Amino acid sequence: MMKRNVTVVHQLGPRLFSTSTIRTTTVVNEPPLRIGSVGVLAEWVSGVRFRSTLALGEEQKEKPKSEAVGSYWGVSPVKMTKEDGSDWKWKSFRPWEAYAPDMSINLHKHHVPTTFLDKIAYWTVKGLRLPTDIFFQRRYGCRAMMLETVAAVPGMVGGMLLHCKSLRRFEHSGGWIKALLEEAENERMHLMTFMEVAKPRWYERALVITVQGIFFNAYFFAYLASPKLAHRVVGYLEEEAIHSYTEFLKELDKGKIENVPAPAIAIDYWRLPADSTLRDVVMVVRADEAHHRDVNHFASDIHSQGHELRESPAPLGYH
Amino acid sequence: MMKRNVTVVHQLGPRLFSTSTIRTTTVVNEPPLRIGSVGVLAEWVSGVRFRSTLALGEEQKEKPKSEAVGSYWGVSPVKMTKEDGSDWKWKSFRPWEAYAPDMSINLHKHHVPTTFLDKIAYWTVKGLRLPTDIFFQRRYGCRAMMLETVAAVPGMVGGMLLHCKSLRRFEHSGGWIKALLEEAENERMHLMTFMEVAKPRWYERALVITVQGIFFNAYFFAYLASPKLAHRVVGYLEEEAIHSYTEFLKELDKGKIENVPAPAIAIDYWRLPADSTLRDVVMVVRADEAHHRDVNHFASDIHSQGHELRESPAPLGYH
Ligand SMILES: [Fe+2]
Ligand SMILES: [Fe+2]
Ligand SMILES: [Fe+2]
Ligand SMILES: [Fe+2]
Repeated sequence: MMKRNVTVVHQLGPRLFSTSTIRTTTVVNEPPLRIGSVGVLAEWVSGVRFRSTLALGEEQKEKPKSEAVGSYWGVSPVKMTKEDGSDWKWKSFRPWEAYAPDMSINLHKHHVPTTFLDKIAYWTVKGLRLPTDIFFQRRYGCRAMMLETVAAVPGMVGGMLLHCKSLRRFEHSGGWIKALLEEAENERMHLMTFMEVAKPRWYERALVITVQGIFFNAYFFAYLASPKLAHRVVGYLEEEAIHSYTEFLKELDKGKIENVPAPAIAIDYWRLPADSTLRDVVMVVRADEAHHRDVNHFASDIHSQGHELRESPAPLGYH
Repeated sequence: MMKRNVTVVHQLGPRLFSTSTIRTTTVVNEPPLRIGSVGVLAEWVSGVRFRSTLALGEEQKEKPKSEAVGSYWGVSPVKMTKEDGSDWKWKSFRPWEAYAPDMSINLHKHHVPTTFLDKIAYWTVKGLRLPTDIFFQRRYGCRAMMLETVAAVPGMVGGMLLHCKSLRRFEHSGGWIKALLEEAENERMHLMTFMEVAKPRWYERALVITVQGIFFNAYFFAYLASPKLAHRVVGYLEEEAIHSYTEFLKELDKGKIENVPAPAIAIDYWRLPADSTLRDVVMVVRADEAHHRDVNHFASDIHSQGHELRESPAPLGYH
């Protein structure tokens, strides 16, 4: 039962800096850097705000004063710093989107399969476990990296389908679109973390492409056919993920896997102490998986009771 | 050039309230309400925090002390209030996710089509405009409602494809997944707003389903084939949207469309004054569209220069 306080945050609204603005703002101290045709954002500091412009093509470079210029869409990157004043390195999440992980979660919860559908879900997952175990053996770092590429798919597919449904039916979502997309992004951050400790080899990359193609489509149609089944499957997948990460921890504790320093992205994403290690990362990732387990079993339960997700407020920010 | 300050926010982390917790937490003042098999979340206040449980099936109801209970996934809804103390009614966005709209944006920017691809995009959009004009005539409320169901598709498709690409390639996204999903959600909020002022009729609902089916697939394959073209098309669609909302404002000013009070959701989403009207809503929606125009033309320009989106930080929070 953790409570999270997000402290005061100044979001520097990224705003347009148009050419007409460039032409007329003689009050700006620093002149804009123009980098034509190179695709990088020119940025300079103006007080606390960064502005940028992207010059587009030789034509603009040659006649920057031309009234015909219509292609400046300088959308400014936001300059952010960490609490210690160093640069914020991440583009896909901002300091206030990181979170203190809830380590108090019960890792041992299990949905006992009772209905026929539950059993299909349960045995599907158990059936997928066998080849996975054979393939990875005890290479848990590699396993984590590979499986996170798959784990980030269901949230995205579910969120996307609920989004389209909300639009088609002129219905509110109950927050479930966002909750599922948050899950997908959280899983993607697991991947961004584990790929720092276990670099994929070429045949692993090839495998990921194949598996994603199959799994994306399978989950897409499963979700269309029965969101109850789809969420139950994910619930069980997350139970297995917790198990795998527990095994990972055992190997770390036995010294069979080296307890390397935590990647920088993990330290920023979960707000870990600077001297954290891989073990700490696996602990917080496992806690995340337990939350996903709950969300998905919960979603399946809502459907089991003949309701739609939007009727029960979604667990936003539940990681 | 607005700067947005998000003030101190206390996010009440919604946390699991497990049965084991229920069984052991005698320190909790209020007993949990158990509502078996009814699919509603039982919630009660415990200080500032809401907890809930969802009892699942008769078995659990009959023997709540049983160790076999494995199906409690009470994921607590977060109780939120507005600044005036009244209930926060929305499940899909939280108070700190609302924003002060940036009304200073240039509404007249236009990307002059220069390349062949630009021209395809431009004339595709112009071609789509004609049947739309004929269908809606001057019913701008209806038009807005109907077109927002389509407008929320590209951001979702683009975000989803970039998400899958990030996973497949073990690559960072540069924030573009989130930026495009934010756009999709912003468009969905436009729909949630306009459906309060123009209720869809049955044949309009049928039309939306058909159009979504076609447009989703068309955009999906267009994005796979050429994200440069896809973003350019959206850029031009947004230019047309700005034009339509300007016409909408003219009709309101002429008194041809009644300037009804703003829907509650619009007041909360854009943080408008309580006495705002439809005119104010159209103003902020139009400003949003101008931001989408910039983001999409910008994205297309990045591709035009032979770069990938992830190489340029995405305009997160740019509405
Ligand atoms: Fe994960
Ligand atoms: Fe997970
Ligand atoms: Fe819109
Ligand atoms: Fe738009």
